[in-house]
Amino acid sequence: MNRAGAQEVLMPIASPAELWRETGRWDFYGKELLRFKDRHERDFCLGPTHEEVLTDLIRREVRSYRQLPLNCYQIQTKFRDEIRPRFGLMRGREFIMKDAYSFDVDEQGARVSYQKMYDAYTRIFTRCGLKFRPVEADTGVIGGTSSHEFMVLAETGEETIVYADHGAFAANVERADVLPPTDASTEALRPLAKAATPGARTVEEVTACLKVTADRIVKTLLYQSAKGPVAVLIRGDHEANEIKLKKLLGLTDIELADPETVRLLTGAPVGFAGPVGLTDVSIIADQAVKALRNIVVGANEDATHYVDANSGRDFQVQQFADLRNAKAGDPSPRGDGTLQVAKGIEVGHVFMLGTKYSHSMKAMFLDPQGQERLAVMGCYGIGISRTAAAAIEQNHDAKGIIWPAPIAPVHVHLLPLSQSARVTETAQTVYDALVASGVEVLWDDRDERAGVKFNDADLIGTPYQVVIGEKGLAQGTIELKDRRVGKATPVPPNDLPQEVVRLLKAAGAL
Amino acid sequence: MNRAGAQEVLMPIASPAELWRETGRWDFYGKELLRFKDRHERDFCLGPTHEEVLTDLIRREVRSYRQLPLNCYQIQTKFRDEIRPRFGLMRGREFIMKDAYSFDVDEQGARVSYQKMYDAYTRIFTRCGLKFRPVEADTGVIGGTSSHEFMVLAETGEETIVYADHGAFAANVERADVLPPTDASTEALRPLAKAATPGARTVEEVTACLKVTADRIVKTLLYQSAKGPVAVLIRGDHEANEIKLKKLLGLTDIELADPETVRLLTGAPVGFAGPVGLTDVSIIADQAVKALRNIVVGANEDATHYVDANSGRDFQVQQFADLRNAKAGDPSPRGDGTLQVAKGIEVGHVFMLGTKYSHSMKAMFLDPQGQERLAVMGCYGIGISRTAAAAIEQNHDAKGIIWPAPIAPVHVHLLPLSQSARVTETAQTVYDALVASGVEVLWDDRDERAGVKFNDADLIGTPYQVVIGEKGLAQGTIELKDRRVGKATPVPPNDLPQEVVRLLKAAGAL
Repeated sequence: MNRAGAQEVLMPIASPAELWRETGRWDFYGKELLRFKDRHERDFCLGPTHEEVLTDLIRREVRSYRQLPLNCYQIQTKFRDEIRPRFGLMRGREFIMKDAYSFDVDEQGARVSYQKMYDAYTRIFTRCGLKFRPVEADTGVIGGTSSHEFMVLAETGEETIVYADHGAFAANVERADVLPPTDASTEALRPLAKAATPGARTVEEVTACLKVTADRIVKTLLYQSAKGPVAVLIRGDHEANEIKLKKLLGLTDIELADPETVRLLTGAPVGFAGPVGLTDVSIIADQAVKALRNIVVGANEDATHYVDANSGRDFQVQQFADLRNAKAGDPSPRGDGTLQVAKGIEVGHVFMLGTKYSHSMKAMFLDPQGQERLAVMGCYGIGISRTAAAAIEQNHDAKGIIWPAPIAPVHVHLLPLSQSARVTETAQTVYDALVASGVEVLWDDRDERAGVKFNDADLIGTPYQVVIGEKGLAQGTIELKDRRVGKATPVPPNDLPQEVVRLLKAAGAL
Repeated sequence: MNRAGAQEVLMPIASPAELWRETGRWDFYGKELLRFKDRHERDFCLGPTHEEVLTDLIRREVRSYRQLPLNCYQIQTKFRDEIRPRFGLMRGREFIMKDAYSFDVDEQGARVSYQKMYDAYTRIFTRCGLKFRPVEADTGVIGGTSSHEFMVLAETGEETIVYADHGAFAANVERADVLPPTDASTEALRPLAKAATPGARTVEEVTACLKVTADRIVKTLLYQSAKGPVAVLIRGDHEANEIKLKKLLGLTDIELADPETVRLLTGAPVGFAGPVGLTDVSIIADQAVKALRNIVVGANEDATHYVDANSGRDFQVQQFADLRNAKAGDPSPRGDGTLQVAKGIEVGHVFMLGTKYSHSMKAMFLDPQGQERLAVMGCYGIGISRTAAAAIEQNHDAKGIIWPAPIAPVHVHLLPLSQSARVTETAQTVYDALVASGVEVLWDDRDERAGVKFNDADLIGTPYQVVIGEKGLAQGTIELKDRRVGKATPVPPNDLPQEVVRLLKAAGAL
């Protein structure tokens, strides 16, 4: 961060409600913003992010264009009152974040600042020894005009990303545009008919019951929103994208209707909703539905579906739009091939904020002509504790963790296999030499069996193990073992420290 | 901390009320404990200290005496909802603390752990380049059997310490025992008489009004407590010690009576309370009062004092005890000379906790005989952000901060005096060489006048300034200036980096 021209600061974790009220986020942020009252009954929150706090600092400190651009970063505990904290460090309520906020005189400057952070993040995650990918992303509660997430690729990732197989396009599936279907069905319209589908509530069950493929079925998802109930039609083999839906509706909050509401609106239990004859509900549909003919939809009647329903004839769609997640095999929206899918863990996120915060908080500076102008902002975050967790998801085997050397808690696990004077003296000599070279060493000096020590060392996952035993010493060697490849090499004790230093330097860890 | 055998951990800042209820501190801690409810309406607090949290960790992890002793430390943000946050980093609500918790099999082991931390703290503050003194201290809301505070000596300190001029005794004045008076007055008792003292409410005013010295006056302080009102008699030239008073009464909370209560209890306004004829109020007195005869006290009547009042004859004291602060000139309670007074800033505090927390939270281990026993604990804290503030209080001059090199934010302030190619190139060369040697450099590359740069550099207080100007370069030198002594030495640019490294190593900063 320093190399990229950013300056370190440290802001409080607790911040006053007044700042959040200025930007409207005191109300907008929802329950993840943990609020409390201090002993004087004043409203505060624990910072889940610090746009307001940094913008407040800068509007007090910056007067002139000559003080810009400015990028301030901090490494600090953040708190988000997640409804379901899970996966340990991956999604805890309390976590360590590196966050940065840039302030520029204009949009062009802001783009330069953004690119510097994008490049710095790329260097940081590369240096961490992680396989990752920057992807276009939704801006969520932070807002702004555009953003990229840095995704560590791992099967266990909570995020789905799509990327073009012959190009640069890569995006969080939440954010990836889907192109309109290129060809529409030309089947002859068949007459609407009812079919008995007892107990067939899901697409899979209807598919099995009616012997049709999922792409002939259209699900009707009922949402409750501040604008009233909305029915959303999505092809059976597609997934609805609620972020796109919210954007279309211009709402920040929508919720799937509960079973009682579904019954009230459709007269049927969950699983049998459909657009035919549905009244008092807005009907919108994913664009893929427009290309279909003779589809299967719920009949708003228990144990019943319509077959051969047709939009325009049997029901009216108020609006067709891109409302689904992209999926493998879709054409890339940039025309650079076909989309592939991968799972990822979001470890970084960079945002072009524009003047969202400087406008609402009046963060102004005087330009060369003496005119007041709004700072153009960006913000940038790395989930530090999550990065550690993501590194483990990406680097482990059946025995335990395999820490990438640059972010390993310690570099070397020192394993003397006996308590004899000779072994202990050698361990001390090696330990002292390693520490003097700046190598971090965990010395297992417990009086335990070798097997116990080896298992614990593999579990903890320190990148290099140094094993000191009587047998080796009799031959003038100790063993240097690489945790990832599992191979042990005999090395004379005197040569070991410089060999470890060489390996750590090559790995970018020293 | 590592060198002293402690292990680093990181606990959450937010902790659940259940843990604090186990020890009783949820109720006992008072308003400094910031409490809140999470989105599920569960009670939490922001940790002002972490005895409960670490004891909970250890009782889950430790089963056997073989796992002890254990000392876990963390460096983390703490929150105390101070009624009056003040002096910037000195007493903020949010601050950075290094806290550690030791667990031993017995009292003797706990004493060893305590001493290790005492020694480590001594090394740490010595290494920080601070003038400090460990003193005996009160244990406050942490509790335990004994404690020492580490005090940075500074005129502006909020704490008063006393120390023996010919020995080792040193204590916070809150904690320092006062010896009973060695000789008592042998004056003949004179008859009780009233004197008019209009407007004389304070000891100073009564002294002036009645032409007596303050040591003949006894103030009557009225406290409200859970045990009812208490009158405390203190010699006019002494200060009451509320911690001693609370301990005597066995209470955690007492408060000076408000003017209305004083009038209710004494029939007089504040400033005229006295023990003679005072009913429905417990009367206790500092032991110094016992040695006095013919004293001046308030008459419980506006504008009136008694002169020549005598304990036992005119009023009854229920208990005499040590209730005052030690002061300069008092004999040391250890018999090692006379007490001196100094002001200090508390930057560290080590506590012998005994089994206070392990008992209430059942932190047990199995001893070699298979018997369950309570871990014996200690806890240890360094106020990191306050240490930085204390360093400034102790090291500054009219121009600004003089950072001790070992804790300076950067080591060298690089000051090129022009934007010429020659000066800039030399600055770059010097900068690169310093950074390559591990020296932290702040490079003032602003296009400002030399005077502005010098003033800012002195204000910021980086220990070494490197000044690069045209004139010096013409003679083949740049200037190395020590912020503390203010003296600049011409040095050839090529020699400068190694000279800086030598100075920083000598100062313990590299």
